[in-house]
Formats: sequence, structure tokens, C-alpha cells
Amino acid sequence: MHTGSIFRVPLTRSHGKALAHRSEFRQARRIVVKLGSAVVTRGDEGGLALGRLASIVEQVAMLQNQGREMMIVTSGAVAFGKQRLRHEILLSQSVRQALHSGQNQLKEMAIPVLEARACAAAGQSGLMALYEAMFTQYSTCTAQILVTNLDFHDEQKRRNLSSTLHELLRMNIVPIINTNDAVVPPPVPNSDLQGVNVISIKDNDSLAARLSVEMKADLLIALSDVEGLYDRPPGMDNAKLIDIFYPGDQQSITYGSKSRVGMGGMEAKVKAALWALQGGTSVVIANGTHPKVTGHVITDIVEGKKVGTFFSEVKPAGPTIEQQTEMARSGGRVLASLLPEERGEIICRLAELLTEKKEDILNANKRDVELARSSGRLSLQLLNRLSLSSSKLNSLAIGLRQIAVSSKDSVGRVLRKTRIANNLELEQITVPIGVLLVIFESRPDCLPQVAALAIASGNALLLKGGKEAAHTNKILHQLTQEALSIHGIQDAIQLVSTREEVEDLCRLDKLIDLIIPRGSSELVREIQKAAKGIPVLGHSEGICHVYIDSEASIDKAIDIVKDSKCDYPSACNAMETLLVHRDLLRTPMFDQIIDMLRTEEVKIHAGPKFASYLTFSPSEVKSLRTEYGDLECCIEVVDSMQDAVDHVHKYGSSHTDVIVTENEETAEQFLQQLDSACVFWNASTRFADGYRFGLGAEVGISTARIHARGPVGLEGLLTTKWVLRGEGHTAADFSEQGSMKFLHENIPVSHRTLN
Amino acid sequence: MHTGSIFRVPLTRSHGKALAHRSEFRQARRIVVKLGSAVVTRGDEGGLALGRLASIVEQVAMLQNQGREMMIVTSGAVAFGKQRLRHEILLSQSVRQALHSGQNQLKEMAIPVLEARACAAAGQSGLMALYEAMFTQYSTCTAQILVTNLDFHDEQKRRNLSSTLHELLRMNIVPIINTNDAVVPPPVPNSDLQGVNVISIKDNDSLAARLSVEMKADLLIALSDVEGLYDRPPGMDNAKLIDIFYPGDQQSITYGSKSRVGMGGMEAKVKAALWALQGGTSVVIANGTHPKVTGHVITDIVEGKKVGTFFSEVKPAGPTIEQQTEMARSGGRVLASLLPEERGEIICRLAELLTEKKEDILNANKRDVELARSSGRLSLQLLNRLSLSSSKLNSLAIGLRQIAVSSKDSVGRVLRKTRIANNLELEQITVPIGVLLVIFESRPDCLPQVAALAIASGNALLLKGGKEAAHTNKILHQLTQEALSIHGIQDAIQLVSTREEVEDLCRLDKLIDLIIPRGSSELVREIQKAAKGIPVLGHSEGICHVYIDSEASIDKAIDIVKDSKCDYPSACNAMETLLVHRDLLRTPMFDQIIDMLRTEEVKIHAGPKFASYLTFSPSEVKSLRTEYGDLECCIEVVDSMQDAVDHVHKYGSSHTDVIVTENEETAEQFLQQLDSACVFWNASTRFADGYRFGLGAEVGISTARIHARGPVGLEGLLTTKWVLRGEGHTAADFSEQGSMKFLHENIPVSHRTLN
Repeated sequence: MHTGSIFRVPLTRSHGKALAHRSEFRQARRIVVKLGSAVVTRGDEGGLALGRLASIVEQVAMLQNQGREMMIVTSGAVAFGKQRLRHEILLSQSVRQALHSGQNQLKEMAIPVLEARACAAAGQSGLMALYEAMFTQYSTCTAQILVTNLDFHDEQKRRNLSSTLHELLRMNIVPIINTNDAVVPPPVPNSDLQGVNVISIKDNDSLAARLSVEMKADLLIALSDVEGLYDRPPGMDNAKLIDIFYPGDQQSITYGSKSRVGMGGMEAKVKAALWALQGGTSVVIANGTHPKVTGHVITDIVEGKKVGTFFSEVKPAGPTIEQQTEMARSGGRVLASLLPEERGEIICRLAELLTEKKEDILNANKRDVELARSSGRLSLQLLNRLSLSSSKLNSLAIGLRQIAVSSKDSVGRVLRKTRIANNLELEQITVPIGVLLVIFESRPDCLPQVAALAIASGNALLLKGGKEAAHTNKILHQLTQEALSIHGIQDAIQLVSTREEVEDLCRLDKLIDLIIPRGSSELVREIQKAAKGIPVLGHSEGICHVYIDSEASIDKAIDIVKDSKCDYPSACNAMETLLVHRDLLRTPMFDQIIDMLRTEEVKIHAGPKFASYLTFSPSEVKSLRTEYGDLECCIEVVDSMQDAVDHVHKYGSSHTDVIVTENEETAEQFLQQLDSACVFWNASTRFADGYRFGLGAEVGISTARIHARGPVGLEGLLTTKWVLRGEGHTAADFSEQGSMKFLHENIPVSHRTLN
Repeated sequence: MHTGSIFRVPLTRSHGKALAHRSEFRQARRIVVKLGSAVVTRGDEGGLALGRLASIVEQVAMLQNQGREMMIVTSGAVAFGKQRLRHEILLSQSVRQALHSGQNQLKEMAIPVLEARACAAAGQSGLMALYEAMFTQYSTCTAQILVTNLDFHDEQKRRNLSSTLHELLRMNIVPIINTNDAVVPPPVPNSDLQGVNVISIKDNDSLAARLSVEMKADLLIALSDVEGLYDRPPGMDNAKLIDIFYPGDQQSITYGSKSRVGMGGMEAKVKAALWALQGGTSVVIANGTHPKVTGHVITDIVEGKKVGTFFSEVKPAGPTIEQQTEMARSGGRVLASLLPEERGEIICRLAELLTEKKEDILNANKRDVELARSSGRLSLQLLNRLSLSSSKLNSLAIGLRQIAVSSKDSVGRVLRKTRIANNLELEQITVPIGVLLVIFESRPDCLPQVAALAIASGNALLLKGGKEAAHTNKILHQLTQEALSIHGIQDAIQLVSTREEVEDLCRLDKLIDLIIPRGSSELVREIQKAAKGIPVLGHSEGICHVYIDSEASIDKAIDIVKDSKCDYPSACNAMETLLVHRDLLRTPMFDQIIDMLRTEEVKIHAGPKFASYLTFSPSEVKSLRTEYGDLECCIEVVDSMQDAVDHVHKYGSSHTDVIVTENEETAEQFLQQLDSACVFWNASTRFADGYRFGLGAEVGISTARIHARGPVGLEGLLTTKWVLRGEGHTAADFSEQGSMKFLHENIPVSHRTLN
């Protein structure tokens, strides 16, 4: 994180009106961060949670250095004071003891019970010194403000406070506000903080709310030890974190018991938040103690990520992503229960609609293309991908009809049938995986294609398209829903709002069963990284090799190398490394291959062994594990077919690798030994493709070692379930004392020819 | 983390002799933690990395509070001083500017270049104050010690220093040692820390080493910004982090360029480490800046986890785990290339050996059982699982022969064959997944079984057994290797040392392709959590339902409920929730079911709806999503079959669910709609099992939605690859201008009956 640099983000927000969407938080100029005692203190001993404090300071300083006006409402003086007083006592006892008895008996010393207000008074100076030392590291100045709630009731005091704070903000200083605990009434005993009576910390909730409104802050981030607001007490079955909470929703939630530390239970927090919201400050309640997110919870919120519960006045139209997923899943279940012909019917209807509504689609697409062109954000290549044409739509419709045909026998196919015992029959049948999330970039023609694949396989589908194709995607999705509506299941396929972040979607691991990224390898890599607990179907690397054996045919070698490298250099199945048998060096074949590559303007890099054979070598490769994705390749020399196999195992990505040879035995050895998803003999790497393989619709190419591998057809979207039909059979019937015996007879099933 | 409690771990280590294994670090009493400047400072601006500092303080304080004697050798005074001086200048400028020109022009102010020694002097007091404030939070005292390397050369100074440090340690104080930068020679300019000349920080490496030896520390943890020592410069192809480095290994590594911050390149660090090692202090060099591990890098090292590079004098016998994995993979490749009969032969030989060497096996097992019994660590149940008997070995051998039979047609089976074009034929064939890691608990009979499964499927295998079965596992593994040796591939199956931590194994994501935990659901859950990027075959939850429909047969209902719950209550396929149709309440059938459960001593919990029907209800469930795993179950009332399906979808774990009804239509609806791995009609949940399903050998039960689902047989250990054989075909041949057309004809393959 670049924290210290004093560049400033454009902050266009005007103060005093609550922000409508999380995406507007980026423009928030004035932000109050409230740190509950659970955030600032450790649970076990009540001391400060220094790591969290440091991380909060870092984030606040970074936001301040972006030109925002940050204020902190903090707890922690009691905790600091407690440790300090305890420390003093221990230290003096320790010295005394060391002088007298020797060593190592400190542990049994009793810790006195300390009064909270005294602790607060003793701790406040140390706490501020710590804040100052920390903020100093980010070249940021701080100031201490001690207030009580009463200060807001006295008009004169309020004005004084406000003017002081404004002056501090103007001077680029971060005010650190705390309740003036020394002057509050004596505390109610509370056993949570061992040995300390806790001060009525709920004051900090209303204090932060009042302060935010008084100072016309754009955003109040209230951090405590809960993830946010749940619709029922967390821990209960199906309790759900509320993403956005509207003032009108208040009846829909059930509050649980108070939070562990502090007396400000959830209800008080919500009350304070709604009060601030009414006053024009947006509020987010989030967890500041979660070890995984603490490092960037504040900046994540400001960047608009889905963290905690956002209190908003504006209820956006449409369902939340969680609701969409649920609708999709239940729609998908009906889809899966349809007859195959009915699913085919929907797909054909969608194909028809692409032709019928061609004008509307092209008009919507035109809007996207014009917007993209005028914004100048897209390259010509991406613009081409974005634009639809009449002929593109036609071939799309043809493809859809093919999917409709291939969908005939996908769901509910019996793979295996076993007679376990008399009247006890087992079937293994294909079923949909569940809810798919397909993330695709600019190409809007992806949408109907993916929709058809999901329909054909009986899966529910969430579609997340690029912003640049928003209008096109919208109409294509409407047409998909129209097609689905002939069987009343328009909900089975949902278009995810462009506002949803991919990263947030990748976290929905209980809702989504499989993620399929369709786009660049960067997209795939990004999603593989972001997906937590959800499998991703795809590959992020394609380092494909062509090995020219000593017994290769010269014509085949040249054709295959040329096709593999030059047909479409940026494809994942393009050749990246050419392995040449040592005996071919300085032969006419080798020279012809080099000549061809030169003619095709392929830039050649030399592997270390190849370079050692040459007097004047081309630039040596940095790594033999490079995916050039362009008219570039590496050439390396190997001693034998076996050496080639070893090279590929060491540096390849198990995608597609080819041997060119006339010797069948060598070829079969290569095909057998090489451990890649696709292994070819005398054929171009470019055949590694679902369409060329004849799989019908292609879902993607996978380099994973489980589930689907290589080009994936419709079958990659299916799993199986086991159906057992009995007449009251029990396991005990088959025990030694039981009356039954296992038969385990295979019952033949009519295998359709797989296609 | 419980940090503050002053309990103490038994530290039996005597000072002054280097520890031989990481596992001995737990007993280290005196530990020096060296913090390189890269750890203590942020890269961007040179300020302190406060979060890291706080986390280091927390870990050191925790270890200190365990009764260890901790010392810190720190950098950071320069960074603190720089920020402080800069801050002072900014502050004064800021006030001046605010008074004059208004606001917000601070950013353009020039930052003066500051001299490093002056910064160090200005920063040392602040740095110490920060350490003290932080350690105070853990009730730990600190003391400042400033030294130069020269202090170690002067005998008198050295003795004074040593005696002071001993006195501090005796008083339970953490000495914080830094070089006395104010008195060192002027620094060499260095552009890394913007605006500051860096002091020759490599002194801290040798300082820490000298100090460790002088103080007879057991362990020196040297933290910097590298993961540890690599065998070649990191970033190069196949550069590997060295886990354990021995003094004799020095020739085998190549040093790269110096690390970014600081002048102490890797070579200097290694030199210092070897020096300390010679003096009797073990050393670990590790990364203290990695965000994911920083939070517990020090405690992880002390707990013996594989972090960084350990400098050890003792070279342990045998290969490292990485070497074992590589040996297994290459052995596995040969195994996969054998004829099916040859693999069967190995398995049969292993079965024979179990009988031939019965005496030896039982003797080894007796040792394990006796050790476990005398240690008193194992429960009677676990002891039973641990003990082998002659009859157990016999049935094991029979099982193995069955696996040998079922292995006949597993690897290399053609699943699909397509004529893509003339002379271009595609095959999809089954191949092994690669390297499996099987983790099993006390049962040693698991070993030959798993080994046979791996051999049958052509997979390489790493076996990680429990410590308590070490002797038995060792001999069983030797016999496995003996069997493998008939085809010269004893390396294909490796027994992992009991010293290796499961967590470390789960991180080997480039080396291991699939993890299979065999044991309790806790084991599975733990491994699913620990596995980073490696798929885990298994299930952690089995919340199985039996639904009694209004049209159920009373006898079948009673038999099935009894069998499902009572046959083996702790099994994952035991019933946890009984769903009863509303109409059955207060019928004789319902009363009989309750009577049966009472007779079987099954504790009943009531779901909320069931409870509402009763005047006196049993205890209401806390959650409808509970796996009791014991003679306990939940009963809930549903309104219809549809309601039952919805309940299972909401609260189930998609493992196994049953309907009991005489109405075929209702049953088929249930079987069709319910989305679980196993759905049964009128049969006990207990049939969800590979053996009962007739899958031959059972690999496990999976509740994942991809790859394998439900009970998994040998097929779960296989994946596929695509083999294409052509005659120089290129993709261009099939373009519009090309000469060829796709045929995509399916060529029938002789489907074996799946078993």
C-alpha cells in the first residue's frame, strides 16, 4: 500500500446528504471511524490489540493522505490504563521480589482490581502517545478531543467543539475523540473485562453518530466485533448478514443478546446508525476484529466493497445477489426436472428470439459500442468483440440449435445400474451441478451461448458480464427469460448487476457450486485467486510444446509448427516451446523450420542447451516456462524422445503437447508417458478445442486433474447422484445374522453414444 | 491467542548445543529474535511497519510469558527518527503555512535529506518508547541495550554486557538490542530508503549471531524479507527454498544479488548463521514481512513448523518430503505405464506378503499397542483400532485380491473415440490422477488397502499415518515396497516421516494432486481447512434424513429408522433427523416408532414444529443442522413430501436422504427432486457405502459436487486424457479455405460393464 504519498483523489461529494450506494463511498470526503472497545482491546486480558490499532492507523492515515478528512472516535483508554497500572505494580513487585527471593515467582502475584474511571484517566495520555507515535510514522498529525454526550446538548459547547474540529481538519490533523471518562458517573460492574469495571461504552455509538451529523460527515464506519447486522441472532440456523439496511426494514430483524464486550448491544448500534442516517451521514457497521479482513476493512469499505451492513435511505430496485442466487437455485431445480425435450424447446425458442428481436438487440448493442467508442476506454480489438452483427446473431442461433440437440440426453442419463440384492436396485444418474456463475468479458454473444449450455444441462445460472456491454447483455438476458418463461422458470438464469464486484461473488461459497470464467487468462487467474472454496473450471496457463523427433517427416513438422504457433498466437493452445531432437540440428529440416518461422515473423528465443550449440544465438530465454501468447517462441534442443517428455513434465503446464515423428513406437511411447490433458501425434496443438474435438458446445478448457480435463463439453456441467430403490431393506439384513446376501449384479444400461 | 497468562511450558533444553530437529524448538528456553530493517520498516516511505512490529511484540511477549527468555535485536531507529524529524519539520511548516496561505498545500513541500546517524539518534528513544508501550500491553518489561560489534572484541566489555543481559533475563525483562549507530562511521549512500542514507545494517546479522553465542541462546530467529535460503536465486526456474541447510551444503547453492533493503545480502546472513550454529545456537532464517505468515511466524517456528530455512548440524537420514514426492511421481509414472496384469500382480504379491510375514507384522504391531497402552494416551476404542490380528490380516489379504481383480480395466480404458476427419482420430482414455496423499489415523490396516487402491489406479502415493502406529506402518510399507519391487518401482509409494506436520503437507500444492483423509470427520474438516489449492476427496458432514410419508408401510418405516439410526450411530451415513408427515402424528405407527427409539435408547430432540404439536415436548433442538453421531436424533414434522424436500435442502448436507412410502409416484418425485449425493426409497441410509454399492474397493464418500460424488470407488482416483493421432493435420486445413471437413463420427468403444 502506498500510504505516505500525498497525492489526492478527486472528492466531489458535497457534505450533508447520505450516500445512496456503496460505490459512492469512494468520493466520501469526511469520514468518522468509530472503534468499539472490542476492536481496540484484546479479549483475553483487556490490553490493547496493537496489531489492529496499527492497521487502523495505517488505513486512516492513507485515506487522510488521499485528501480526505478523517476523524477517529476511539475506545481503549481503560485498557491502556489497566495495563499501565498493572505493569507499574508488577514492576515494583518484580524488583522487590528479585532483590529478595531470586527469580521466577512473578506468575503467582495477584492482580488488583482497578477502577475503570481511574484506569481511563491513567490510560488516556498513554493511548494518545501511542496514536501519535503511530500516526507520526505516516507523517500525520493528531489531536486529542475529550467530550461527553452532554457537550452536544449545550449549544455554546457544541459550537465551540465544532469550530475546533473544523479548524483541526483544515490543518490536515486527525482528531482523535474519546469520551471524557473521568467525569462520567461510576461504572456498572461487568465481568467481561477481567479485573476492570467497564464504562458505559454505548456512549461511543451515539457519540460517533452525533459527531458525524454535527460535522456533516459523509460516512461513519462503526467497527465492533460483529460482522454487521443479521436478520436474526447470528448462530441461529439460516441467520443472514444484511448487506443493505433501510430504515423501513426495522421490523424484519430480531435482535439477539448483547454483544460480549461493552454494553452497546446491536439494537443501540442500529438506533445510533439510523439517527446518523437521518442526519445525512451514511453508516456502515462492520467487524474490526476479524483477523482476515482487519488489515483493510476501512479501506475496503471506502472502496465500496461489500463489508458489513450499509445503512442506506435509498432502497435500490431489484433483489440482492443472495436473493438472485436463491431464485436461480429454485428455478434451476424446476429446470432440471423438465423433460429433455422441454429444455431443448427453451433453447430453440431463445434461438428464434435472437432472430425475431434482431433489431432490438442490434440497437442496444449500438448504444454500448457508441458509449465505449466515445469514452475511448476500449481498444479496437475489444470494440470488435463488443459489436454484434446480423451474421453474428445468425451463427449464434445456429450454435444454440446444436446445443438443443446435444442436450437431449444429458440430465438423468443412467450411467450404471446394479442389482444389489433382490428388489434392491441402484442407479447412478447424471444431474446438474447446481448453480453456476459465469463471468465473461466484453463479448455479449457469450450470454446466449452460456445460457443455452446451462439450460441444456439443467443448471441454474448467474451471469456476470462486463459493464461495457450492459445494454446488450440486458436485452439478451430479457430474451433468455422470455424463452424460459414458456415453462415458467424465468428465474433460473439471473443477470448480476454491474455494480456487484467479482471478488464479492467469488466469496458466495455456500450459494454457488461452480465458477466458469470466460475470457483472458488474466481473468481466469484473478478468479482462481479470488474464489474461496468454490471450484473454478478453467485454466490459467497454456505452455504447449511441439517436439520434432529425429524421425519426423519434414513436411508434417513444418506444417504443424507453423499452424501451432501462427494460426492464432494468443490462444491458450498455441505452441510456446519447440523441442528439437539433437540430431536435427544443422540439417535441412531444421533450417527450413527456422526459415518458416522467420518468414512468419516469429521471434525466436533460445533455450540454454540450444544456445550452447550456436555460435551466435538469439536472445536466451529468461525462463523455459514462459507463455508468450504472441508471435514468439522458445526453441530448445533435447537428446531423445524421453528427454522431451522430461522437459515437458518439468516446464509444461499439462495443457497440450505434440510429437512429430514417423516412428509409431516412439509416438506411442510419447502419448503414453506424457502426462498432459491433450497429447497429440502428428497434429497441431490447435486441435485442443471443444468444437474441433466434436464435443458440441464448449464450456471451456480445464487443466485441473479432477472433474473435467482438457476441452470440456456439456458433461463438465453435470455431476451424478445415486438412486436406490428397495422394499424396506436394511444394512442389518446383510449382516452375518441377516437373511440377505449381496448380489451386486450389473444390469446393462443402454449406453448412448457419447457426443 | 492467550498471551498474558503466565503459565509456563516445560523447557528441558540445556543451553549451548544446537538443536537437531525443528521439533526440538518447542523446548528452546533462550531465543534471540533478530528483526532486519526490511521487517521493521515499510518499503514505501521508510517509516515503521507498525502492524508487523505489534505482531512481533505479541509473539515475543507470549513466548516470554511461557517462561522463555526472549531477546530482540532490532533495527528501526533510523526509520523512526526520519519520520520524527520529518514530522517536526512538516508540523512547523504546516502551522506557518496555515497561518499564512490557508490550506491544503502541504503536499508540495520538499522533504529534506536527513543524515542516517542523526536519524538513528533521534529515533532510538521513540523506538524504545514504542516498544515499551507495546510490551506494556502484555505486562512485559523491556530494557534498552546499545552495542557495537567492537564491544564483543573487548573482553571486559563483553563480560559486562553478558552479565547485564543475564541479570535482565533473570528479572524476566526482554532486552531490546540495537547497534549504537550514533558512534559508527558515516554511512555509504544507498538509494533504497528514500531520503535517508542507510547505516551498514549487516552488522545486525553478525551482532545477533555473536550475541546468541555469547548468551548461549538455543535458537536465533533471523527475520528479513526473504522466505529463507534458496538453492539458486529466487525467481529462477525451479529455484527451491531449502528447508534444512547443513554446513557441508554450502557449495550447492548459488547466491543472487543482494536483498533490496539493507546491505546484508544472503551470503552475509548465511555466514552469520553458520557462525552461530558452530557456537551452539540453532538458526532459522525466515520472512518476517509476508503478510499471511507475519502474524505467527515466530511462534510457528518455535512450534516446529516448516517456516524458512533451518541451519542444522545434524543431517537426518533419508530424503526430504519434496524429494519423496518427486521419487513417488516418477515411480508412479512407471506404475501407470505397466500392463494392468502387472499392477494386479503387485497387489497380489502384497496380499501374499501379508500372510507370509504375518509374524513380523504382528510383532511390530504389538510394540505399537504396548507403547500406546503404557503411555495411556489412547482410548480403548482407539487401541482396538490400532491392534491387528491374524484374522484382520487374512481379511485384508482377501480385500486386496478383490482390488487386484477390479484393477484390470481401470487405467488406459477408452471412454470415447471420435473420427474427427480422415486419418485423424481422437480417444479419451482414463489415466491416474498423479500423486495422492492419504492421511490416516490409528488404523494401520488402512495402509495396505490404500496402497492397493493406488497401485490399481496407477497413482503415486504418499502415506501419512499416525505416530501411534509407527512400527506397524513401517513394516507394512516395507512389504508394499517389496511387492512394488517386482517391477522395480518401490519408490512409487512413500511413507512420510511421522515428524512431518499434516499442515505442511497440505501446502505442497505443486507436488500433490489429491488429498484423501481417512478418519474422523474432524480430521477431514481440519484437512479441508489446511489444504491450499489441493482438492480434498472427502466429506466433513453427514446430516442424513429419513422422511416417513403419510403412505408409508409401518414395518418398513420402523425397520429403516432403526437401521438408519442404530446400526452404527457414529457413521456419516447414520440418520440424524427423522421427518414425519403431519398426518402420522398420534397414529399407532408414530407411537411404535417412538417406542422403538426409546427401546434402542435413542435420545430424541424435537424440531420447533414437532414441539409445537406436543403438550410435553422433549428438549427442543438448538439447530436443525446437527450431526449427533450418537444414539440421538431430531424429529421434525412436515406437511408434505414437498415440505420434506424443502427441509432437507435447507438443513441437510446433501449426503444421503431417504423416503419411506408405498406411493410410487410420491417416491419418484422425492428421488427426482432431492438434490443429494444419495437418494433412497424404502431403504436404510446405511446403504450409502462403496462396498454395499458394489463399487469394490471404497476410496471414500464425497459430498463435493464435482469429480466424484457419494461413495467413491477406484474411478475416483482416475482422470482422463485426450489422445489425438493424425498425419500432419493442422487447424488451417479446416478453415474456409482449407481442404478438409470435420466428420466427428463416433467410433463405438467396447464398454466394459462398470464395476
